[in-house]
Amino acid sequence: MTPHTPGARPEWSRNPAVVALGGGHGLSASLSALRLMSDRLTAVVTVADDGGSSGRLRDELDVLPPGDLRMALAALCDDSEWGRTWSALLQHRFSSSGDLDHHAMGNLLIVALWELLGDTVEGLDWVGRLLGARGRVLPMSSVPLVVEADVRRGPHEAPLETIVGQSRVALTDGRIEQLRLVPADPPACDEAVQAVLDADWVVLGPGSWYSSVLVHLLVPELAHALHATTARRCVTLNLSADTGETAGLTAIDHLEALHKHAPGLRVDAVLADPSAVEDVAGLADAAASMGARLLMRQVRRGDGTARHDALRLAAAYRDVFDGVLGDV
Amino acid sequence: MTPHTPGARPEWSRNPAVVALGGGHGLSASLSALRLMSDRLTAVVTVADDGGSSGRLRDELDVLPPGDLRMALAALCDDSEWGRTWSALLQHRFSSSGDLDHHAMGNLLIVALWELLGDTVEGLDWVGRLLGARGRVLPMSSVPLVVEADVRRGPHEAPLETIVGQSRVALTDGRIEQLRLVPADPPACDEAVQAVLDADWVVLGPGSWYSSVLVHLLVPELAHALHATTARRCVTLNLSADTGETAGLTAIDHLEALHKHAPGLRVDAVLADPSAVEDVAGLADAAASMGARLLMRQVRRGDGTARHDALRLAAAYRDVFDGVLGDV
Repeated sequence: MTPHTPGARPEWSRNPAVVALGGGHGLSASLSALRLMSDRLTAVVTVADDGGSSGRLRDELDVLPPGDLRMALAALCDDSEWGRTWSALLQHRFSSSGDLDHHAMGNLLIVALWELLGDTVEGLDWVGRLLGARGRVLPMSSVPLVVEADVRRGPHEAPLETIVGQSRVALTDGRIEQLRLVPADPPACDEAVQAVLDADWVVLGPGSWYSSVLVHLLVPELAHALHATTARRCVTLNLSADTGETAGLTAIDHLEALHKHAPGLRVDAVLADPSAVEDVAGLADAAASMGARLLMRQVRRGDGTARHDALRLAAAYRDVFDGVLGDV
Repeated sequence: MTPHTPGARPEWSRNPAVVALGGGHGLSASLSALRLMSDRLTAVVTVADDGGSSGRLRDELDVLPPGDLRMALAALCDDSEWGRTWSALLQHRFSSSGDLDHHAMGNLLIVALWELLGDTVEGLDWVGRLLGARGRVLPMSSVPLVVEADVRRGPHEAPLETIVGQSRVALTDGRIEQLRLVPADPPACDEAVQAVLDADWVVLGPGSWYSSVLVHLLVPELAHALHATTARRCVTLNLSADTGETAGLTAIDHLEALHKHAPGLRVDAVLADPSAVEDVAGLADAAASMGARLLMRQVRRGDGTARHDALRLAAAYRDVFDGVLGDV
């Protein structure tokens, strides 16, 4: 594929409709970049968290775990004193020796809006209006989910062990052989399905690969929309092999895990940072086997941390969306 | 005093700078009326609550009790879908068998803003901006206060008993002989003092007479400002003898309690509902002894509840501020 000439660029390319799938810090990084190039963004967010403030709210009030939704909303805040202040408030955590310790303010706000309005999507849209958010944040399912994983420790003959709960799966030191959701056939969020079908680009990752990224492919209606959409699909790989669920996995292993959980899924682009790839040619081959071109770009910060730089990642997405994929 | 002719009306009279002092439902009633006639409103609010959600937050996080401030802010919300929705959210209470049970969302929001911004007044101003509030809400003191009352049960020779804490004082079935604050000389909120000095009118009451209204006179700098201001002063009496702290007290007793706690305070107007006054001539005399004219108006709702009607109360304040005080 050669770079598009300006005349050949599709009409949407200056403000593409983008759906970003993920959860946690990975999705925040993605949204912080995408917001710089589009205000037609939709984040579709995992709702399987069972730890921390979210897990407690889920247990106490029988609601979707709000934490990943909160982080996505905070990342989309308007870049003004107003947007930044309310975003910081949403991210504020209480610290005490009492009941509120470690609760994130935004989690409480989202849950209260759900109780007040009686509608998940409407509640999230109100938080978006509060923040002047550039885009919309939706849950991947309309019901709280439990993630289960069959993991193996040691050689292939070792017995499988079942790990229950996103917080435990994310930290497992075993090799994840199979990922499941409970319930197995959860209802998708209708608006999320429609956003995927209407998108110009869909972005998977970065993020905790099994518990925040691949988990979206286990919601049947959402997986169907990801296969059926005319949108192009970009997979953004992580900056480092995580500790926990993906410890020791290479970039190629990440793509293979995606292929295993969504066998027929065609991918158009794979975006990776050179520092996180050992075998570039092998990764390009793995990408090609899914239909994708590989784009290698430095998207990490210069401070030595394994964190994305929003401007570098935004520029890389511009290259991806414009078809500048001639590096490898 | 005869009614002003239009030409004699002072310049401020169409949008007077009004300071309303009180707490709880009484102050909310007052603000719901005053917001209809002025957008130069300041609520100066008691910070001695030690019960319920406020009391728990005060204990857990060592902050001002936010509940009365929250209610005042909610009453000042902009009358739009935006203002009403955020106001309803602030008033929303969680209900569960867990940690969050009975916490008001707005209390958590206010406290989180205080922690985030490190400034009480700035935090309240941000909530005001969120609500599009018509006016400003300030605490009467910059530190949390404890209300103490010496009460007597039975005849004058019965021994005095000390009741500690606003929630207990408000419910006491004894006769309150003396009200105190701990600390005895708390710092006032500077902005509240300035608002009193700059006001056209200051309104005391309605509300829990000792624990929400008279308590303002025990903050030395605030009491001094109330005496020194060139503003006129209006006392708005309650619609019914409360249960608890003022059970059995007449309207005249309420004025006498005010006189006892602020001996030299000159009052310009006393506003009362006919249904709550047994001895109109006696009340007019008591008002006159403080320098005030009495205005009798139906300001209660027509539904049989002891609650103020915002429009009737607003119209009565218009009469008070315009000098229409010829009824008694």
